[in-house]
Amino acid sequence: MNILYVYAHPNPSSFNSILKQHALDLFTKLKPNVKFSNLYADNFKAIADWEDFNLGEVEINSQYFLAQQEAYKNQKLSADISMELTKIAWADHIIFQFPLWWFSTPAILKGWLDRVLVKGFAYDAGKIFNDGLLKGKTASLVVTTQSPESAYQTNGLHQATIDTFLHHIHHTLRFVGIKTLAPFVIYSAFNLDAAQKEKIVTDYLTYLESLAENYNQNTSLKNV
Amino acid sequence: MNILYVYAHPNPSSFNSILKQHALDLFTKLKPNVKFSNLYADNFKAIADWEDFNLGEVEINSQYFLAQQEAYKNQKLSADISMELTKIAWADHIIFQFPLWWFSTPAILKGWLDRVLVKGFAYDAGKIFNDGLLKGKTASLVVTTQSPESAYQTNGLHQATIDTFLHHIHHTLRFVGIKTLAPFVIYSAFNLDAAQKEKIVTDYLTYLESLAENYNQNTSLKNV
Repeated sequence: MNILYVYAHPNPSSFNSILKQHALDLFTKLKPNVKFSNLYADNFKAIADWEDFNLGEVEINSQYFLAQQEAYKNQKLSADISMELTKIAWADHIIFQFPLWWFSTPAILKGWLDRVLVKGFAYDAGKIFNDGLLKGKTASLVVTTQSPESAYQTNGLHQATIDTFLHHIHHTLRFVGIKTLAPFVIYSAFNLDAAQKEKIVTDYLTYLESLAENYNQNTSLKNV
Repeated sequence: MNILYVYAHPNPSSFNSILKQHALDLFTKLKPNVKFSNLYADNFKAIADWEDFNLGEVEINSQYFLAQQEAYKNQKLSADISMELTKIAWADHIIFQFPLWWFSTPAILKGWLDRVLVKGFAYDAGKIFNDGLLKGKTASLVVTTQSPESAYQTNGLHQATIDTFLHHIHHTLRFVGIKTLAPFVIYSAFNLDAAQKEKIVTDYLTYLESLAENYNQNTSLKNV
């Protein structure tokens, strides 16, 4: 099993960082193949623009996604994007770990989606959803929230469950053919005591182990 | 009426750019007060990190939003963020114009939300939704999509209306007290012929004029 771990948190001393480190340590023990995209540490470029391509100036009159497709076809994507494409092509499963900021991903991870889910590579005309070019891969979101779980209920503060707010991200992944598995959500992440954190670490490791086990047992999930 | 126009499109020759220019020309004619944040042209920083604050190193161990609150309180926010705060404080209505990328805003606009909706300025403990610190302001989204309108139906390609995908953005604005008005959506924006574009421009100008008129007639919408 090949796992790509995409991590987007700015604070190396955060609980997110601790969870990420536990995951990487577990992978060392379980020995799946792992590649790691640490977006903040890598200073990943968030803004999609024409500097992403080594194309002629004439292409600036095109749409970004068409220029992207053209650049991919002609191997003119910038090196940082090409590196992510190589990791995605290699991966069976992608984990995205991030704090929910304004009911979505941090901008740096949105930039990863904008720049890396390249037309021609991840999807194409008629190659979407069940026929998406990344078909056969799976992904899961690992998300921390500031609000407690009670806020993410239809009768709670946000008047909807977390699934409502993760929908646009799950839909994006499904659009390119990636099967999305149940997310691992850590509510009230800023207000956890030591015992609560310890339990979450245990639960997270169980989640990851189960993911790896189910993956190995369920060939239908495997990349083809 | 004070309008802040936040625009996020990378291509100066796009239909988005044409619509933006029509809006600015209309405002010149109608004479509301207008401030313009052209995120791509301004090279707006998208990534929220500790370079946004002139705080001591010790604060790096804090959460971004807590550091943000602290920086705001002590006037230690970076100049680009402070400038956006001044514009928001001044505005009665904010228009966000952007292409829908992966069922959300482009990363550069997500970065604006992450960095500019500062705790202590836009919201605070107990100061959210109807009591949000930006209460009294209104906003509307002007959005282009690649898919046709038929795709944004519960029985269409995306199995949900556009409101489902704009929900996390509207919810963000409502969280800080901003009342969200009906969005102006341009479907199939990449496949419009000249006549269709002309009709959309006319409709958009009508939408903006109606916005300004309703605004002037409805004092309950006015900032207090």
